[in-house]
Amino acid sequence: MIIDGKKIAREINAKTRQQVAALKAHQLTPGIAVIVVGDDPASQIYTRTKHRLAQKLGIASTRYHFPADVDQATVLQQVRKLNRDDSVDAILVQAPLPAQLNGEEIVNAIDPAKDADGLHPLNLGRLYAKQGGHYPVACTPRGIMTLLKQYQVPLAGANVVIVGRSLLVGKPLLALLNNQNATVTFVGRHTKKRATLTRQADILIVAAGVPGLVKAGDVKAGAVVIDVGINRLPSGKLVGDVDFAGVASLARLITPVPGGVGPLTVAMLMRQTVELAEWRRERVASLVG
Amino acid sequence: MIIDGKKIAREINAKTRQQVAALKAHQLTPGIAVIVVGDDPASQIYTRTKHRLAQKLGIASTRYHFPADVDQATVLQQVRKLNRDDSVDAILVQAPLPAQLNGEEIVNAIDPAKDADGLHPLNLGRLYAKQGGHYPVACTPRGIMTLLKQYQVPLAGANVVIVGRSLLVGKPLLALLNNQNATVTFVGRHTKKRATLTRQADILIVAAGVPGLVKAGDVKAGAVVIDVGINRLPSGKLVGDVDFAGVASLARLITPVPGGVGPLTVAMLMRQTVELAEWRRERVASLVG
Repeated sequence: MIIDGKKIAREINAKTRQQVAALKAHQLTPGIAVIVVGDDPASQIYTRTKHRLAQKLGIASTRYHFPADVDQATVLQQVRKLNRDDSVDAILVQAPLPAQLNGEEIVNAIDPAKDADGLHPLNLGRLYAKQGGHYPVACTPRGIMTLLKQYQVPLAGANVVIVGRSLLVGKPLLALLNNQNATVTFVGRHTKKRATLTRQADILIVAAGVPGLVKAGDVKAGAVVIDVGINRLPSGKLVGDVDFAGVASLARLITPVPGGVGPLTVAMLMRQTVELAEWRRERVASLVG
Repeated sequence: MIIDGKKIAREINAKTRQQVAALKAHQLTPGIAVIVVGDDPASQIYTRTKHRLAQKLGIASTRYHFPADVDQATVLQQVRKLNRDDSVDAILVQAPLPAQLNGEEIVNAIDPAKDADGLHPLNLGRLYAKQGGHYPVACTPRGIMTLLKQYQVPLAGANVVIVGRSLLVGKPLLALLNNQNATVTFVGRHTKKRATLTRQADILIVAAGVPGLVKAGDVKAGAVVIDVGINRLPSGKLVGDVDFAGVASLARLITPVPGGVGPLTVAMLMRQTVELAEWRRERVASLVG
């Protein structure tokens, strides 16, 4: 059975549009600001997709585009300006950044209450500690959790293997799944006997950025397979990290690429922007009285 | 081969004593403040051990003891007072806290730069994100990493299984080991086929608080076994989570209980207190000029 990411994304977007309308009825328009550096073609596509969806849903979207040779101080200054800007609820710094920039310092400078990607260490730590209260969480992992829930995949006690340990996907996902009492194994480049581990997985999540990394022999029959990879082949074709043709017949559930995890990431970013706006409003209300 | 935690702890403490002396030569005495609530017998022992070692090493140690029925505001007020107290470099809130207290709110109130246990979400997030710079890390996991290093246990590519997912031990340890490119599986109460997983471990770390949980049949021959459990049997005897008699002959390296991980935890707490004092001093120096 092939997971329909587009359908779930449409449902989320419909709900987000309602939430935006409800906020606008109170003279409040949620706003997202995206900082992009340089002219990476993939970044251009991603930020354009985000901008279009924001507009479609009624979210104010602004883009700050800097040349590839911009210096650290200029980007930090922009982040701090956006922190202070009351019309901005969510700030996103589009990866990748050129080598001369210190991405860590830039992420740390974002107001944690406006952290669209959930990558500020304070938010990551709250998630990892399974703290209560409101805080943002990385959008691709949130999308994957939504998708697993929609398809009623049991998480408690499930053996989960995550291939790929990035800050944007693998790490928040490990925290989210562990918080649901899944048993998680975190697999990376250095892992020995990778196939032995992946073949034990009830749920296999692949976010390595390597086309065709996971093949039929790496997957247990009846597993749920989530493919986070988006790789463009020389032919122009988009493929994931999983050999879809080989694995699809074996898996109980599998995400296609494109049309699986991708649409959920952008949908969750918009939902999170609206949530950040709502949480900020609640905080202001509680401070005022 | 049995790991000698006491010996490594002595070496660390000797170094800490030198660091303290060096700071005192600059009229700076590192200070730790411990908040204890109620009369839990184990907490009494732990805080007394910490206090004695601090005194022995020349660290100023103060203890704030509150009755078991203290309210949240009183504890928070004490934390904030210690945050502002320039003679205090490290603040520790001794677990467990009584049920009426919100431990999360208390930990979040600690100045991250004085977070003796490394449990503030900002510090946990920086560790999990593998950020650079100075920040405190939970002391038991730091102790375990020191011990693995001392005994030259290779971490990159090693298959590590951590049994027990606590905030104080399991979670920071997963981050530390993952940051060294170990392949980590995180095992808890809900895990199915626990023995299958633990038998694959090159390094098996048990921090579950269940006496004798791990037996010979759960361990691969030649594994490194780290026992974090400290359980007092009805007879009064202290035992770990690992059946030492059964597992010792099988393991390549194993920690005893007591005398394994325990002494390292307190030693690392003292070292970290001194580091926090040094980092704070460096920060002040860089702000001043």
